[in-house]
Amino acid sequence: MEYPKDPYISIHYRKYLGLDKILSAQHLRSADLEKPAHDEMLFIVIHQIYELWFKQIIHELDSVSKMFKNDYLDENNIATAVSRLDRVLVIMNILLEQIKVIETIKPMDFLEFRNYLFPASGFQSFQFRKVEVMLGLPSDQRITYNNLPYHSPFTDEEKRELDSIEQSGTLVTELIAWLERTPFLKFNEYSFLKVYKEAVNKMIGKEQDAIRQSQYLTEQEKEMRLAMVGNTSNYFASIFDEEAHNKLIAEGKLRFSYKATLAALFIKLYRDEPILQVPNQLLERLLDIEELLTAWRYRHAQMVLRTLGRKIGTGGSSGYDYLAKTAEKHHIFYDLYNLSTMMIPKEDLPELPKELKDKLSFTFTVK
Amino acid sequence: MEYPKDPYISIHYRKYLGLDKILSAQHLRSADLEKPAHDEMLFIVIHQIYELWFKQIIHELDSVSKMFKNDYLDENNIATAVSRLDRVLVIMNILLEQIKVIETIKPMDFLEFRNYLFPASGFQSFQFRKVEVMLGLPSDQRITYNNLPYHSPFTDEEKRELDSIEQSGTLVTELIAWLERTPFLKFNEYSFLKVYKEAVNKMIGKEQDAIRQSQYLTEQEKEMRLAMVGNTSNYFASIFDEEAHNKLIAEGKLRFSYKATLAALFIKLYRDEPILQVPNQLLERLLDIEELLTAWRYRHAQMVLRTLGRKIGTGGSSGYDYLAKTAEKHHIFYDLYNLSTMMIPKEDLPELPKELKDKLSFTFTVK
Amino acid sequence: MEYPKDPYISIHYRKYLGLDKILSAQHLRSADLEKPAHDEMLFIVIHQIYELWFKQIIHELDSVSKMFKNDYLDENNIATAVSRLDRVLVIMNILLEQIKVIETIKPMDFLEFRNYLFPASGFQSFQFRKVEVMLGLPSDQRITYNNLPYHSPFTDEEKRELDSIEQSGTLVTELIAWLERTPFLKFNEYSFLKVYKEAVNKMIGKEQDAIRQSQYLTEQEKEMRLAMVGNTSNYFASIFDEEAHNKLIAEGKLRFSYKATLAALFIKLYRDEPILQVPNQLLERLLDIEELLTAWRYRHAQMVLRTLGRKIGTGGSSGYDYLAKTAEKHHIFYDLYNLSTMMIPKEDLPELPKELKDKLSFTFTVK
Amino acid sequence: MEYPKDPYISIHYRKYLGLDKILSAQHLRSADLEKPAHDEMLFIVIHQIYELWFKQIIHELDSVSKMFKNDYLDENNIATAVSRLDRVLVIMNILLEQIKVIETIKPMDFLEFRNYLFPASGFQSFQFRKVEVMLGLPSDQRITYNNLPYHSPFTDEEKRELDSIEQSGTLVTELIAWLERTPFLKFNEYSFLKVYKEAVNKMIGKEQDAIRQSQYLTEQEKEMRLAMVGNTSNYFASIFDEEAHNKLIAEGKLRFSYKATLAALFIKLYRDEPILQVPNQLLERLLDIEELLTAWRYRHAQMVLRTLGRKIGTGGSSGYDYLAKTAEKHHIFYDLYNLSTMMIPKEDLPELPKELKDKLSFTFTVK
Repeated sequence: MEYPKDPYISIHYRKYLGLDKILSAQHLRSADLEKPAHDEMLFIVIHQIYELWFKQIIHELDSVSKMFKNDYLDENNIATAVSRLDRVLVIMNILLEQIKVIETIKPMDFLEFRNYLFPASGFQSFQFRKVEVMLGLPSDQRITYNNLPYHSPFTDEEKRELDSIEQSGTLVTELIAWLERTPFLKFNEYSFLKVYKEAVNKMIGKEQDAIRQSQYLTEQEKEMRLAMVGNTSNYFASIFDEEAHNKLIAEGKLRFSYKATLAALFIKLYRDEPILQVPNQLLERLLDIEELLTAWRYRHAQMVLRTLGRKIGTGGSSGYDYLAKTAEKHHIFYDLYNLSTMMIPKEDLPELPKELKDKLSFTFTVK
Repeated sequence: MEYPKDPYISIHYRKYLGLDKILSAQHLRSADLEKPAHDEMLFIVIHQIYELWFKQIIHELDSVSKMFKNDYLDENNIATAVSRLDRVLVIMNILLEQIKVIETIKPMDFLEFRNYLFPASGFQSFQFRKVEVMLGLPSDQRITYNNLPYHSPFTDEEKRELDSIEQSGTLVTELIAWLERTPFLKFNEYSFLKVYKEAVNKMIGKEQDAIRQSQYLTEQEKEMRLAMVGNTSNYFASIFDEEAHNKLIAEGKLRFSYKATLAALFIKLYRDEPILQVPNQLLERLLDIEELLTAWRYRHAQMVLRTLGRKIGTGGSSGYDYLAKTAEKHHIFYDLYNLSTMMIPKEDLPELPKELKDKLSFTFTVK
Repeated sequence: MEYPKDPYISIHYRKYLGLDKILSAQHLRSADLEKPAHDEMLFIVIHQIYELWFKQIIHELDSVSKMFKNDYLDENNIATAVSRLDRVLVIMNILLEQIKVIETIKPMDFLEFRNYLFPASGFQSFQFRKVEVMLGLPSDQRITYNNLPYHSPFTDEEKRELDSIEQSGTLVTELIAWLERTPFLKFNEYSFLKVYKEAVNKMIGKEQDAIRQSQYLTEQEKEMRLAMVGNTSNYFASIFDEEAHNKLIAEGKLRFSYKATLAALFIKLYRDEPILQVPNQLLERLLDIEELLTAWRYRHAQMVLRTLGRKIGTGGSSGYDYLAKTAEKHHIFYDLYNLSTMMIPKEDLPELPKELKDKLSFTFTVK
Repeated sequence: MEYPKDPYISIHYRKYLGLDKILSAQHLRSADLEKPAHDEMLFIVIHQIYELWFKQIIHELDSVSKMFKNDYLDENNIATAVSRLDRVLVIMNILLEQIKVIETIKPMDFLEFRNYLFPASGFQSFQFRKVEVMLGLPSDQRITYNNLPYHSPFTDEEKRELDSIEQSGTLVTELIAWLERTPFLKFNEYSFLKVYKEAVNKMIGKEQDAIRQSQYLTEQEKEMRLAMVGNTSNYFASIFDEEAHNKLIAEGKLRFSYKATLAALFIKLYRDEPILQVPNQLLERLLDIEELLTAWRYRHAQMVLRTLGRKIGTGGSSGYDYLAKTAEKHHIFYDLYNLSTMMIPKEDLPELPKELKDKLSFTFTVK
C-alpha cells in the first residue's frame, strides 16, 4: 500500500500515481549493450502505454461481465454497461490512433535495436489475449503463429486464468444467455416469429407485385429485379428455420442460438419502444467493439508490413501474414452483422399488440 | 425534380447526387482575374463542404426540435433524438478535424488570392447563424463584428427566418419547457427538493465532523479543510433558493428556470433509474454539443491567427479577436455545466420512495 | 463566370462559393416518391462531400504530376510536391474519419430508401476511378465487380480521359522515371551497388561469426539464429541480381525497374544527406498515401458489411466481398514496402566518398 | 539492469517492458479506504499514460536541443530534427484525443474518490513543467495558481533541474541563436532588409494606385480600401525599424531578436530555395507545437469545467480559470505568428541575385 488508510493524509501527484515505478521502467537494451538507439525509447514507452490501456479495458469488461453474470442484467445497470462499453470504444479509438506514433519509427531506425529483442513480440502480451478471451474469441478458432498454441508464451498460472475465463462465461456467451431470457417473443396470443414471417412474406410479395405491374420496366429488367428480390428472400431462410440456423452454427458460421437471434432481431426491429432503447444501444456498442478491434488488427498488420516489409522472394510466413489473417478470422460478435440482412423497413414492420406495447412502456410518462 | 416519380427508374450515381451542379460550382476568382492561385481551389472546396455539413446539422436539429415541439417529447422518440444528436456530434468532430486541412494553406499562399475576396467572410454564412439560432444562442448576447448586427449580411427573407426561429422556440427553450414538465419532483409526500437539501446538509455535516475529529490533521489543516467544505456549500446556495437562482438569471449567468434546473438535477442524480437513462443521455449530448461547438470556435480562431497573424502594433481588432471572443462568450447550454457543482456522491444519495422507484421502472422486466 | 473580371467588386460569401447550386443539389428520391426518409439527406450530403474531396485530391495530384512531367522534377519544387501530398494525406485522414458519419445510418433506416437508388453505387464514381488511375493503379490488375469492366459506368469521353491518363504517365510511372534519372549511383570510381553488396555481406558475416562464437547460445539456438540470418540474406537476393528482380516484375510482384529500385534504396539509406532529405520525404508520403488508401478501402468494406450484412446462406457475392478484395489487391506503391527488407542499420552503412558527400551538401552552409 | 549484457539472451515481452512494475502501479485510494470507486482506475491509468507520453516528448526535445546546442545545427541533422518534432506532434494529437477518455468520468462518479486525493493535482506534474521549460516558457511569464510559484510542488533537486534548463538554453533561445547565424541576409551587395522594404513599399504603392484609378469603386469605397491598405502598412512598421521591434520586445510582445526575425522572414519568403526547404519545415513544426499545446490547454480547461463546473455564485477562482488563463497567456513561439502579417505574395517577391540563388542550391542536381 502506498498511503496509510486515512482519508485526510496529504497526497502528492507523483506518489499517488506511482510515478517512481512508472517512469523508471524503461530499460533500453541498446543502451545496456552500449549502442544506444534513440528510437528504442519510443518502442518501449508505446508498448507500456498499450498495456496500460489493456489493463483499463479489462477493468471495464470485467465490470460489465459481472453485471451480466448476475441472475439477470438488472435494468438499472444496462445504461451503466452501455456507458462502460462507450468508454472502451473511446479507448479503442486511441489504440487505433497510436499506430501513427509507432509508424514514426522508420525501418532503418528499428534495425538499430531490433536484433536485441529476440524473440519478444506482441504475441507474448498476456493482457491482449485476456481481452480477446473475455470478449469471447474461442481458443479453437484461433490462427496459430509459427505453429505455437496461442497461450504458449504464458506461465501455468496465466494459462489457467485464460482457461477459467473461457469456461466461466465470456461476454458473448453471457450476451446469448441474456438474449435468451428476453420475455417478449411470445406473449399471450402473440408470437413474434409468426408475425415477422408474415411481414417479410408480405413485403416480398408486395415488391414482386409492383415489379410485375410496373409500366416502366422492360421484361428483362423485371426478371432481373424479381431475381434480386428472390435473392433477398434467401437471407431470411435461416431465421425462419431453426434447423437451417443450427446447421450454420455447426459449420461455425453463426454462434448465437436460434432463440437469442430472434430476441436480438426483436430488439433491433422494435428499438424505439422505451424498454428496448437501451438494450438496442448495448447491441450497437458490441458491434462497434467488433468493428474497431478488427480495424485495429488490420492497421497493426499494415504497420508491421511497412516497418518490416513483405519479404518477397523468401518462403517464410511473416508477422504481417499472421496479423492480416487475425483481422480476417478473429471475429467475435459476427452474428450481429448477420442481423442486418434481416431488417425490414419501418413501413412494413407490424404494430405490436396494444397490451404488449403498454408493457414495453413506462407507466409514468414524462408529460 | 431530377428523376420521374417512378421507383423503378434506373438511377445513376452522378445524376442522383447532382454532381453536375456540385462539381461545377468552383469558380476561382484568381483564375478569372488571370492570376490563378493553386490554393484557392481548396479554399472554395472546404467552405462548400462546411456548408454541406451545416445543411445536414440543420436537418438533424430541425427533426429533434419538431419532436420537442409536440405536446410532449414522446418517450418513443427520446432515443431517436439522442441518436440524431450523436450524429451531429460525429459531424462536429469532423468539422474540428477539417481545420487541419485549411491550415495547409500557408499565409504566403493565401495572399495570392485574398485581396480578391473582399469583403466575403464566414461572418456571412447564413447556415452557421441558423445553427446557432436553432440551438438557442440569444441574438442579444452576441459579440458584434466591426459593429455590425449579426444578421446584417442577410436578405430580408433570411432575417425573418432567423427571427422566426428565435421566436417560435429554440432547442434550449424547448428543453427548458420539457424539463419543466417532468412529473417526478413532487409525488405524494415526496418532495425532491426537500430530500436533496437534507442530503446535501447531511453530507456537509458528516464531512465537517470527520475533519474536526481527525487525529491526523493539524489544527491549521483542519481550518483549511473546513473552509473548503464551507466553500462547497456555497455552490448549493442558488439551487436551495429560488430567488438567488432568479437573480443569477437576471444577471445573465443562468438561463434554465428554477423548475427546469431541479428537473435536470433529478435526472442526473437518478440517471440509473430505467425511465431516466435515456433522458440523461439527452442532457449529456447537449453538453457535448456545447463543448464541441466552443472547441471549434477556438480552433477556428487559432487557425485565423496562424494564417493572418496577430497584427501586433496596429490598433484595429482582428478576425482572431472576434472569433476568440465568440469562443469565450457564445455559450448555449451553460446551465448544464453548473449542475456539475451540485452533484453528490452516490453513497450520499437518498433512496427514492419505493412507490416512485416502481413508477420509474418497467413493469415488464427482462428477467 | 460568377463575377465580372474586376478585382474590386464586392464579393458575397454565398455567391463566391456558389452556394445556390451547392445547397440546392439534394434531391431525396424518397421525398419525390412521397415516402420521405429522414436519413436519405445524410446519404446524399456525405457522398457529395466525398466527391468534393475527390475533386480537391485530383487538383493536388494533377499539380504534382505536372512537376514530375517536366524535364526534371526541379529541386525547388520537391518541397512543394511534398507539401501538396501532405495536404492529400490530411484530406485522406478526413475521408477515413467520415466513415463514422455514414455508419450512423442504421440498416433499418437505410432500407427506407435503398430500393429507390438501384443500381446507383460508388462503383459509378468517375472521380474516384480518376484518382486511382492518376496514382497508377493499372487497369489490368483491377478486381471486377459483377464481371463489369471498371469503366463500364462511364461515358465515352470519360473513358477516353481515363485511358489518356494511364497512357501519358501516372504518378507511379513518373516516379520511376524520376528515380531512374538519379545521378549518384555511379560517380567516378564509386558504385553504390557494389558498396552496398559488400556492406550487406559484411553485416551478415559479422552476425554469423558472433552467433558461432557466442558463449551464451546452445548449439540448437545457434542453428536457429543462423537459419534466421540465412533467411534474411534471401531478402537481398532480388536487389543483388537484376534478373531475379526482373522476374518478380514479370510475375507482377514488383513494378519499379531495377535502376529505380536502386535509386530509391540509395535515397532511403542516405536520407540524412542534405540533398536527399526532401526526396526521402517524397517517398515517405507516397507510402503514406498507399497505406491510407488501403485503410480507407478496408474501413469502407467494414461499413458496408455492417449496414448490409454478410448475406450468409446465399450464393451471391456482395459489395463487401468486392470492397474487401480491393483492399487486398488494389495496391500502387508496393515496391516501397519491399525496400524495408533491404535496409541495413546505420552502423553498417558505408560512408560515402568525400567527393560525393560534398556534392550532396550545400556549398553555403548555415554556420 | 533487467537483462545481462548479452545480445543473444532470450527476451520476454513482459520482462523487456518492465510490465511487473508498470501494471502493479495502480493503487486506488478508494479501495484502500474500503469504498472502491470503479472510475478511479481510469483516473490513475490515464494520468500514468500522460506521464509516459511526457517522458517520450522530453526524450525527443532533448535530442533536438542537443543538435541545436552544437556549434551549429548541422544540415545533416535538420531533417532529423524535423522528423523528431513530427513525432512530438503525432503524440500531441494523441494527448488531445485522450481528453475524450477522461471526459467519460462523469461528475457524480468523480465525487466518489475526489476527496481522497487532496491536494494532488496536475499542477504537481514535474515532467509537464519540464516540457514547458525545455520549449522555452519563461518562468517569469507564468500564471500563478493559488499564488504558488510554479515550482513549489517540487524537490530542491527538481527545482535545480528546471532552473538549469532555463539557464543553459531552451528550444526558443537556441532557435533564436540559430536564426541569428543565418548567413544569407547580407551577401556582397545584397541586403535582404533593403530589398524587402522596397518590395513592400512597391506592393503597397501599386495597390493604392490601382484603388485610386479603379472605375468600379465609389469614392467612399476607395477611401475605405485605402485605409485598409494603410493599416496593412502598419504591420510592417516593426520589421522596418529595429527600435520599434526592440520596444515590442521590452513590452513582452515579442521575443525574437531583430536579426532572428529577419532571418525567419527570409526563410519563410524564400522557402522554395533548396537550402531553405527543410529549415522552413522546422519553423512550421514549431508553430504546430505552439498551436497544439495551446489547443490542449484549452481542451483541458473545458474538461475541468465540465467535470467540476464553473462554481457560479462563489468567490473563489477555480481550476478552470487557471487553465483557461494558461491557454491565453502561456505562449512560446508567438513570434512566428507575427511573421504571417509580414508575408508578401509571390508575385511581389523580388528574385534573389543569381550568385546567391546558386549558393542556395545544390551543385549536383537531380537531372
